[in-house]
Amino acid sequence: MKPRWKGKGSEAKAMADPMSMIVSQLQSFLIQSETRGLLSSCSVLVEVDAELADLLNRACFGRPRITAEKDKQWFQLDMEEAFYLCFSLKCLKVVGEDGCIKSNEELWGHWKSKKVVFPVSFKAYSHLRHKNWIVRSGLQYGVDFVAYRHHPALVHSEYAVLAVSEGNNDQNGRLRGWSDVHCTVRLCGSVAKTLLIVIVNNNSQCAISPSCLEHYTVEERTITRWNPEQSREDQEILENRAK
Amino acid sequence: MKPRWKGKGSEAKAMADPMSMIVSQLQSFLIQSETRGLLSSCSVLVEVDAELADLLNRACFGRPRITAEKDKQWFQLDMEEAFYLCFSLKCLKVVGEDGCIKSNEELWGHWKSKKVVFPVSFKAYSHLRHKNWIVRSGLQYGVDFVAYRHHPALVHSEYAVLAVSEGNNDQNGRLRGWSDVHCTVRLCGSVAKTLLIVIVNNNSQCAISPSCLEHYTVEERTITRWNPEQSREDQEILENRAK
Repeated sequence: MKPRWKGKGSEAKAMADPMSMIVSQLQSFLIQSETRGLLSSCSVLVEVDAELADLLNRACFGRPRITAEKDKQWFQLDMEEAFYLCFSLKCLKVVGEDGCIKSNEELWGHWKSKKVVFPVSFKAYSHLRHKNWIVRSGLQYGVDFVAYRHHPALVHSEYAVLAVSEGNNDQNGRLRGWSDVHCTVRLCGSVAKTLLIVIVNNNSQCAISPSCLEHYTVEERTITRWNPEQSREDQEILENRAK
Repeated sequence: MKPRWKGKGSEAKAMADPMSMIVSQLQSFLIQSETRGLLSSCSVLVEVDAELADLLNRACFGRPRITAEKDKQWFQLDMEEAFYLCFSLKCLKVVGEDGCIKSNEELWGHWKSKKVVFPVSFKAYSHLRHKNWIVRSGLQYGVDFVAYRHHPALVHSEYAVLAVSEGNNDQNGRLRGWSDVHCTVRLCGSVAKTLLIVIVNNNSQCAISPSCLEHYTVEERTITRWNPEQSREDQEILENRAK
């Protein structure tokens, strides 16, 4: 399935403005401004000025949150987004209710307590982000994430992503039966996305601290419908024969 | 969601020809003709003449199977369909490879060995069939069944059905996490069906024989998307106010 660009010129625009550069700019800005986020249960709130809001929007981290304070603007980052900025890009500090900066180990423990599969979902998130995919919540499609080639203003998301752990001991895990696989593949087809399974193997690390992450390995699988009618003979061969 | 009839006159046609009558005709015919089916792993093959083929088609049991024998026509029944005709309607006998008629207990044991959740899926199937719904495989939507108000030639299926056992100890069972629920509800919405969960409680019966089925209880739940914008004020009240 080819990327579905939104309108003419979008592809050229995206090519001229690589996502890796935008994320680097965001990273530099956050480091220089010594930005602090506030830990708020499953997310992190960041007070932003116009420049930071623009960078977060362009790099697709978090969402603007409207508050009663007219002169202040806030962004809310999901736990994977926040931890990616803290731990992977080392450009954000997160402050707890007590006003103290949380270490990566503390954030890791906190989010693991909120979401058992956080180590796996974060590994999948960071794996795709490192490859310069834009990764957003897949909630409305019943998957973990959706992945965009560039900014969602320019292109539709190409992949519906499920992060599963190798062995899949999680009893609430996905794709444990054919009926779920069928359902997910059918839905992905109807919204023109490819189902991407990111299989995370923790290699028997027990996920006590985020340093385990470097020992995790990741395998990618896409699942698509196989249409026997279409695949029976190669279309090109048939066309060449007809000439 | 209202039933989606296929074209004008379909609803009147369905009303004039109740499904309960069609199934009764099929039942009488099968009893009088002493029809035998052949057990074939997960399904049952029935050799049919023109009249029986017509009745099976109208009552929506099984599918015609094309074979090399030109003068013979065969229908293939799924295990739930076959067992409904044998056990619930008592109008079909099934013969094994040895040429002997299988008892209901033998068929029950055989299909349980082929499909662990057979007792639950059969209870759901027969529950809906008893209420004169037409029940067909939901494979292409990643659910157990789809349910039609009348013949699929007249109306689209209204419900996508998942049969789950109370307590849901089946590790491969559906709807164990929110992501699966979202995925399924979203898919059902996109194909204009309502998700119907048929919850089967075996009341601690151990499913040794089909006589357990009478002690099973069934609960129905539909799951639909709640749109807060649409539900905020009752539309009728607003319209009355505007008058």
